[in-house]
Amino acid sequence: MQILNRPQAVIFEDTCRQNIKKLVARAGKNNAACRPHFKTHQSHEVGKWFKDEGVSAITVSTPDMARYFSRDGWTDITIAFPFYKAQIQGIKELSSRSNLRLFVKTQEDCRFLSQSLNNPVDVMIEIDAGYNRSGISYLESDTIDDLINSINRLPLITFKGFYIHDGGTYGSRGKDEVYHTIQRDLEAFRLLHEKYPDVEYGLGDTPSCSLIDDLTPATELSPGNLIFYDLMQIEIGSCSYDDIGMLVRVPVVQEKPGSDECIVHGGAVHFSKERLSINGNVTFGQPVLVGENGGITKIEGTSVTALSQEHGTVSGLDALRKAYNGKILDEIWICPVHSCLTANLFDTYMTPNGRFIDKRVLS
Amino acid sequence: MQILNRPQAVIFEDTCRQNIKKLVARAGKNNAACRPHFKTHQSHEVGKWFKDEGVSAITVSTPDMARYFSRDGWTDITIAFPFYKAQIQGIKELSSRSNLRLFVKTQEDCRFLSQSLNNPVDVMIEIDAGYNRSGISYLESDTIDDLINSINRLPLITFKGFYIHDGGTYGSRGKDEVYHTIQRDLEAFRLLHEKYPDVEYGLGDTPSCSLIDDLTPATELSPGNLIFYDLMQIEIGSCSYDDIGMLVRVPVVQEKPGSDECIVHGGAVHFSKERLSINGNVTFGQPVLVGENGGITKIEGTSVTALSQEHGTVSGLDALRKAYNGKILDEIWICPVHSCLTANLFDTYMTPNGRFIDKRVLS
Repeated sequence: MQILNRPQAVIFEDTCRQNIKKLVARAGKNNAACRPHFKTHQSHEVGKWFKDEGVSAITVSTPDMARYFSRDGWTDITIAFPFYKAQIQGIKELSSRSNLRLFVKTQEDCRFLSQSLNNPVDVMIEIDAGYNRSGISYLESDTIDDLINSINRLPLITFKGFYIHDGGTYGSRGKDEVYHTIQRDLEAFRLLHEKYPDVEYGLGDTPSCSLIDDLTPATELSPGNLIFYDLMQIEIGSCSYDDIGMLVRVPVVQEKPGSDECIVHGGAVHFSKERLSINGNVTFGQPVLVGENGGITKIEGTSVTALSQEHGTVSGLDALRKAYNGKILDEIWICPVHSCLTANLFDTYMTPNGRFIDKRVLS
Repeated sequence: MQILNRPQAVIFEDTCRQNIKKLVARAGKNNAACRPHFKTHQSHEVGKWFKDEGVSAITVSTPDMARYFSRDGWTDITIAFPFYKAQIQGIKELSSRSNLRLFVKTQEDCRFLSQSLNNPVDVMIEIDAGYNRSGISYLESDTIDDLINSINRLPLITFKGFYIHDGGTYGSRGKDEVYHTIQRDLEAFRLLHEKYPDVEYGLGDTPSCSLIDDLTPATELSPGNLIFYDLMQIEIGSCSYDDIGMLVRVPVVQEKPGSDECIVHGGAVHFSKERLSINGNVTFGQPVLVGENGGITKIEGTSVTALSQEHGTVSGLDALRKAYNGKILDEIWICPVHSCLTANLFDTYMTPNGRFIDKRVLS
């Protein structure tokens, strides 16, 4: 491993490829297509690992992110965020060389799009089945029908189907709770499916795409976090430490035996400020060991208990030292609470062998 | 204003310059030097605004950040983070063209530095007076004396003084509480000053540097956040909305009259996940109005109540509409909870006139 002169996001290719294979298999069993969300890894190279498994369509958050992947040859791109008028220049540019899918929520959006575009785009309707973030409630059937009729009357936009991202599953714990939560979405899909049987039904959350075998009538799966997973997904039960595709290596900068803590170079500018309450204790990350074969093990009795801009405070110095056979700690590995936000804060990834992997940086 | 096709961090030059002037005046009254922390703005141009007020020495968090400012002609740079060995290459490179100051905590650090360097650096000892993050407790006077003696015996490193960043003031509310908290630091400085009268005593927190007139025996002030302030500092009482130097403009992407909410394009990848509890309610940001003269006013009855990766949920749609005289909301302004983390997540700033201001991007 190279000398660690700053925190590094390290990704494990074999594990990521396994996670992709599992997703593709689950989609296959559901006769559903894979349209993975690339907002988590934001990397051309990681995108290719999906291509190797036959994935040909992707999901992103913004026109900027679509442009990044479009430059690498992806041509079938869903922008899974409510379309708004100020995005039109980016959309026009992208639609000249890509099959774009947008989320529309009003007839005004549709008229504006149709009048502004030079090339056709597909549109989907985001459905809210109870998560209560963006989208139209599945109960507002008149609104939905009117919107679809409006789309069907307008040139250059084609109605393609419905999409639900139920972030409510992130508050679930265990397969049964995830199953219970996602049923509201599948039920909403079933109701829509009676009226609109020949369109797409896309689902986006990682817990469901990891744990629930039967996602009928979904026809497309678009999880993002699943490529790397993280501590939150371990807590939900979506994965185990063996499935973690990204960790952060952080330099240890001060040992504090008196308070059984150490200070690491790894703060809110590396992990965001995402927190997780486990048994009543707030954590910002979990120290782990990485074995020679790449196996990841939680170091019991340790936790990242505080983050400031560049500093992380890690409790359990004794347990850390024992895990490292008593040697002086130069660096440790942290499993982040939320890998999407952590990955977004790094300008590159490293492999365990020290190879850098290009990724998109902010914007 | 330009069309807002993504969230934008907007900075108000006049306000920032006022904040700098107030800091310089406070330092002057204390016969202290200004060594402002540049981790908050991370911008060459904003740095020049400090230079315009006679500031010639700065503070940063990492060798990478030091390099960014060194390229712009800053030559007196404190890296206010515990030095660790893996940084040595960056330190050697920087010390060939800058007067560097490092924080050392062990005699081993000092021996390693002295043996590795080709050019001299100054070193300071970070003191912990009760915040309990990094640094050496002021009560460990033998450790401190031994460390200073060790520094004094070694070539190429020169003992320069002590530094305290008391993040405890961020948990204070109101001037009296900030005053009470910072007394532990000033008392630690006084004790050290009896033995070491002729060295520097640096203080770093924004609440103290904003509210406390007498910071004796501090000889240097290094606040960072003070350039922009933010919602947290308003809650502490360090500033008012008139002092806010940076806001985020976010597109409104969906109005939800049924739940008195709207969804904005502005999420955890723009604001980090910093939260603040105000009267028992957790907020991730405060919607404000910006008047034609640049005055900033809180929109009562509104709050950013949730953030996901790209989405923000804002409560108080009715209040927002009233504040905007009933017109359809294309965009709103958000005062971030923590401007340091928010600024870090943007690749550029914009002025209200639409001029882009360059800044450093991750690493």
